[in-house]
Amino acid sequence: MDMIPYLAAASAIAALLLAAYYYKAVEAAPAGNDRMVFLMTEIQKGARAFLQAEYKWVSIFVVVLAILLAIVIAPLAAVSYVLGAVLSATAGYVGMTVATMANARTTEAAKSGPSKALPVAFRGGAVMGFSVAGLALLGLMFTYLLFVVWLEVDNAFNIVTAFGLGASSIALFSRVGGGIYTKAADVGADLVGKVEAGIPEDDPRNPATIADNVGDNVGDVAGMGADLFESYAGSIIAPISLTAFSANLIASDNGTDGIVQLLVFPMAIAFVGMIASIIGSFFVKGGDSTDSHALSKALHMGTNVAMGLTVIATVIIAYYLFGGDLFDKPWGLAVSVIGGLVVGWALGKTAEFYTSDQFNPVKKIANQSETGPATTVLGGISTGMVSVAASVALILIGVGVAYWGGEQTLGAGGGIYGIAVAAIGMLATTGVVVSVDAYGPIADNAGGIAEMAELDPSVRNVTDALDSLGNTTAAVAKGFAVGSAALTALALFKSFEFAIIDANPAKALNLNVGEVDVFIGLFIGAGLPFLFAALTIDAVGRAAQQMIEEVRRQFREIPGLREGKEGVVPDSARCVAISTEASLKEMIIPGALAVVVPLITGFISVNALGGLLAGALVTGFALAIFMANAGGAWDNAKKYIEAGNHGGKGSDPHKAAVVGDTVGDPFKDTSGPAMNILLKVMTIVSLVFAGAFV
Amino acid sequence: MDMIPYLAAASAIAALLLAAYYYKAVEAAPAGNDRMVFLMTEIQKGARAFLQAEYKWVSIFVVVLAILLAIVIAPLAAVSYVLGAVLSATAGYVGMTVATMANARTTEAAKSGPSKALPVAFRGGAVMGFSVAGLALLGLMFTYLLFVVWLEVDNAFNIVTAFGLGASSIALFSRVGGGIYTKAADVGADLVGKVEAGIPEDDPRNPATIADNVGDNVGDVAGMGADLFESYAGSIIAPISLTAFSANLIASDNGTDGIVQLLVFPMAIAFVGMIASIIGSFFVKGGDSTDSHALSKALHMGTNVAMGLTVIATVIIAYYLFGGDLFDKPWGLAVSVIGGLVVGWALGKTAEFYTSDQFNPVKKIANQSETGPATTVLGGISTGMVSVAASVALILIGVGVAYWGGEQTLGAGGGIYGIAVAAIGMLATTGVVVSVDAYGPIADNAGGIAEMAELDPSVRNVTDALDSLGNTTAAVAKGFAVGSAALTALALFKSFEFAIIDANPAKALNLNVGEVDVFIGLFIGAGLPFLFAALTIDAVGRAAQQMIEEVRRQFREIPGLREGKEGVVPDSARCVAISTEASLKEMIIPGALAVVVPLITGFISVNALGGLLAGALVTGFALAIFMANAGGAWDNAKKYIEAGNHGGKGSDPHKAAVVGDTVGDPFKDTSGPAMNILLKVMTIVSLVFAGAFV
Repeated sequence: MDMIPYLAAASAIAALLLAAYYYKAVEAAPAGNDRMVFLMTEIQKGARAFLQAEYKWVSIFVVVLAILLAIVIAPLAAVSYVLGAVLSATAGYVGMTVATMANARTTEAAKSGPSKALPVAFRGGAVMGFSVAGLALLGLMFTYLLFVVWLEVDNAFNIVTAFGLGASSIALFSRVGGGIYTKAADVGADLVGKVEAGIPEDDPRNPATIADNVGDNVGDVAGMGADLFESYAGSIIAPISLTAFSANLIASDNGTDGIVQLLVFPMAIAFVGMIASIIGSFFVKGGDSTDSHALSKALHMGTNVAMGLTVIATVIIAYYLFGGDLFDKPWGLAVSVIGGLVVGWALGKTAEFYTSDQFNPVKKIANQSETGPATTVLGGISTGMVSVAASVALILIGVGVAYWGGEQTLGAGGGIYGIAVAAIGMLATTGVVVSVDAYGPIADNAGGIAEMAELDPSVRNVTDALDSLGNTTAAVAKGFAVGSAALTALALFKSFEFAIIDANPAKALNLNVGEVDVFIGLFIGAGLPFLFAALTIDAVGRAAQQMIEEVRRQFREIPGLREGKEGVVPDSARCVAISTEASLKEMIIPGALAVVVPLITGFISVNALGGLLAGALVTGFALAIFMANAGGAWDNAKKYIEAGNHGGKGSDPHKAAVVGDTVGDPFKDTSGPAMNILLKVMTIVSLVFAGAFV
Repeated sequence: MDMIPYLAAASAIAALLLAAYYYKAVEAAPAGNDRMVFLMTEIQKGARAFLQAEYKWVSIFVVVLAILLAIVIAPLAAVSYVLGAVLSATAGYVGMTVATMANARTTEAAKSGPSKALPVAFRGGAVMGFSVAGLALLGLMFTYLLFVVWLEVDNAFNIVTAFGLGASSIALFSRVGGGIYTKAADVGADLVGKVEAGIPEDDPRNPATIADNVGDNVGDVAGMGADLFESYAGSIIAPISLTAFSANLIASDNGTDGIVQLLVFPMAIAFVGMIASIIGSFFVKGGDSTDSHALSKALHMGTNVAMGLTVIATVIIAYYLFGGDLFDKPWGLAVSVIGGLVVGWALGKTAEFYTSDQFNPVKKIANQSETGPATTVLGGISTGMVSVAASVALILIGVGVAYWGGEQTLGAGGGIYGIAVAAIGMLATTGVVVSVDAYGPIADNAGGIAEMAELDPSVRNVTDALDSLGNTTAAVAKGFAVGSAALTALALFKSFEFAIIDANPAKALNLNVGEVDVFIGLFIGAGLPFLFAALTIDAVGRAAQQMIEEVRRQFREIPGLREGKEGVVPDSARCVAISTEASLKEMIIPGALAVVVPLITGFISVNALGGLLAGALVTGFALAIFMANAGGAWDNAKKYIEAGNHGGKGSDPHKAAVVGDTVGDPFKDTSGPAMNILLKVMTIVSLVFAGAFV
């Protein structure tokens, strides 16, 4: 049993070795002609410049919070916090670097068909996937072993939790900053390029095209990677801190005898999940067909194998750890974990149902575009809102099953532990899930490069087939991210409650919603996600506006650019710089909000803070689902029309659908995904500072 | 002190007499030429037909719930419930009948200028205002005197609360049904008439024009009246039931000696507010100028006088009732009431700031319409979301001040009573507030009639001046409705908690947000408003679609209609019938949701129900503000452009603004306003059935 943290650390090292192997494999693939290499290098330079600038800004924030942690909690908490932040940033940087190497190589491989191109794109994504999972698990196990097992310091679990706060800090800024960047560039490129200048997407004449492709990488690769890094770390930390802070509550029947099992169970699941992900990744092989069904099967094979193995191993682990006399039915917690996995999968499927053009909701929106942009917008809004109700129902089933499972093994009071481990069920296979998810933007970039390098249209056909697949695979990762966010935040919230009682048992914590301070907190909590959404939507608007003006200026001032005269190139670097500056400036206020508001509230009233976290969790969850799915639905309704329905490209319904898609851009790629992290940052900040509040 | 309920009843009778006086005054005014009388009659017929059909449907619902109440609670509760429903329906019917008489008479008076027309429109609205306030207060006082004072029956306060449930039932269906009707007709008339057929608004050739004008009456007059009827009754019931259910908690220092004061205080405020409203109504006099500032001053004079008098009288009452030894500082509860009034006013001003073209937010949206519909839509969404944060902050100030005030007079535990009476502060002057609010749609209709009867454009200029004023006066009533909804729901929520404990002290009620059942309830509660919004938005879409098809059919099949050939008239009755049928069919599911979900949840777990109510209250409040203000902002951005900015009517920015306005239509007139009632229906259902749950 004591070996489990070491095994988990070893599996993390194996994941990092696999990432290195995939890195070599990507590097070895040919990157194509000079033009392609040039484009790839430009995108890479832009993406790196953004991340470097972003990390510079974020490091100020990290240093301030580290000092606060060192003073208020413990100097070692600051160390653990910084470690979490640095490892998350490292995973993002490495993953993105490789993604920006894999794009042109995927284009080059696409010349020989999808069976060659799919593995290149997947391997590029897999470097991200296994860097994220490997560094998160290795860092966390190192922190745990160092402070809890080897040094046995005071506040050890607070210090371990600070690792999660570090990961959350990076995730929040990466999602917000990256989300603003990618949409500002996208909107800027589309609005002036496609609409005003009348040139196709990814046309080399458009000065914002490089920035647009950089955006895919900083938003969908680096942002998503940091998001999953923090979700994954958070899901393992939640049951550990819950156990630590509520030790006497959970194990009341057995004294402290069962504590170790509860501490290592999440690590054991992470261990088998990692091994399963490594094995699963070898099952991804491209076929010779561009048929989307066959490609989809090839890509999902890795995830399915990894999940199947994890399910089997979970049952074995549950019986191994909880089979003794100390516990009741050992299968209970296996049910919790597997229940989490199933609900996460179902959440992904729900998102797919509401956002894929295979199903009615998107077809209905496409149909509504016949009566103009207003009905298109209303259709997307109501679709997104209905999907909230469906997702809430699923989460509640997950919560109920996980709670019940926890009680089966641990007795009354163990239900919340079941909820905490259900989140790990969703995220145990993060390695392969992120690999598949990061594959999407690589394929998207590959298409952009094919277009900009003016390759044969057949190449673009292959990359398009790979790209369209990316949209549905992203739904799976989103389902897990959203579901685990709700469950992890709920478990962390409970840990927060225990931590307050632990820190000062005399302090009467009363989180009854009928109390006025709790209710005031609930109100603040419900209002915050709306404010956050408004700030990020406005930020995208302002940044996009700057981009639009710059693109217009270049078309106006650079002679021959619009006409595509030989040798005339746009000043892409200027667009990249504008996106970078604007998005970094805009990320500061919404990012700071997530940390400052709970801290101020907590020092005034912990009851109000409790209400705030609960209110923000439920409202933020609803708003996140609404925005993500409304945005996804509009996007695919537009693509459905572009595929030739309702008059196809250029028709009035298409124009209406483009309006919906543009409204949805900041919804689904900026505000929505950042909302989940907002919730967790607020909860984890409160948990880490719980002792200081009372 | 015992006289107060009788005084309140007497003031209610005075209000009804005033309504009768204004009715006579409206009736005596000339209604214009035959064409105008014909149009007026058509609108009146359509509106009555709708209300009759609606009440038929709703009566089924009322009967079912009455039987349930009779069986589960007490037969007398069913009586009180039906009384509340019938009186609310009566007020709606009477008010709307007069509103549909006042429209043509306002048009006729407009021929002699605004100084003649404004009083006609105001008096028409005042019949609604004083019918609503008079019947609500009279019915409530009668119920109170009968069951509490004269008969002293068991469960007397439950029975009084059932009166509020009756009012809420009518309000919910009137808002939902009326809201769907008005927007279906509006969208149908606009989309085919203005956009496809290219004819102006309110053109007699458009078959949907009559339905559109009917919609203003059933939505903005009858729906708004029922809304305020239930808000007003609810705000008086909340502190009464709070006192009754928590008697021992609040007055613990004084035995039951202070109870009577607490019971009659809300009635005393209602009494002085009613007298003040009656006096205030005589201060509304039209000037000779169409200058909006002067007109606005004339109209607001009534409200300002009424509010000023209420503030002064509140202080006197507080010293009269709470000046004795039983209580601490008597001014405390006066602070609560006046604080409520000020916050309600500030909420209205906030709504005005975010939705009036005098201020930056709307100008910004108008500016964003330069870059097309997508940025217009995003601008409105972020404006609406920011306004949530501002409104939440105001509500929290109101809650804090009212709570503090309550504690000053009543000691610890009295804070929640302060919150309950703050809501009365907002609504004591309902009589005059609703009069001013109902004025708006009458002026709007008057303009429609001027257009359809093809009167001289100078008449339309006068009615337009009166109408544009209506948009800002509506903001005041909205502020009070929204603010009181939050405060009343909070007080009713607390009553619910006490009622559960009263009914079965052995039942361990635990509303701690950290408990899983409460948290599950919170999640359901947060999801419900999204589902409700989606259902109502979709309902508007479907009903509008039917209307569009009918209008197209008529233009296609009635020869000479489009060309305006002499003697060719559209089949307006068919459009009215379609709107009626469609909106009634569509209101059933969202309406039933509000009653069925809390009942089912309550019978499964009262803790979960507590969470549900809290979650729905905070999320629903946020969503209601978001939808109302986003919708208002788009509407006025469009009007701002139509006034000649950004290229004026017909320009591309105008087209973009029209898209925003159409998106906002169901937001501000259907889903948003109905959301407030949804919250209260759910809370009051839970409170009435509290005893049955445990």
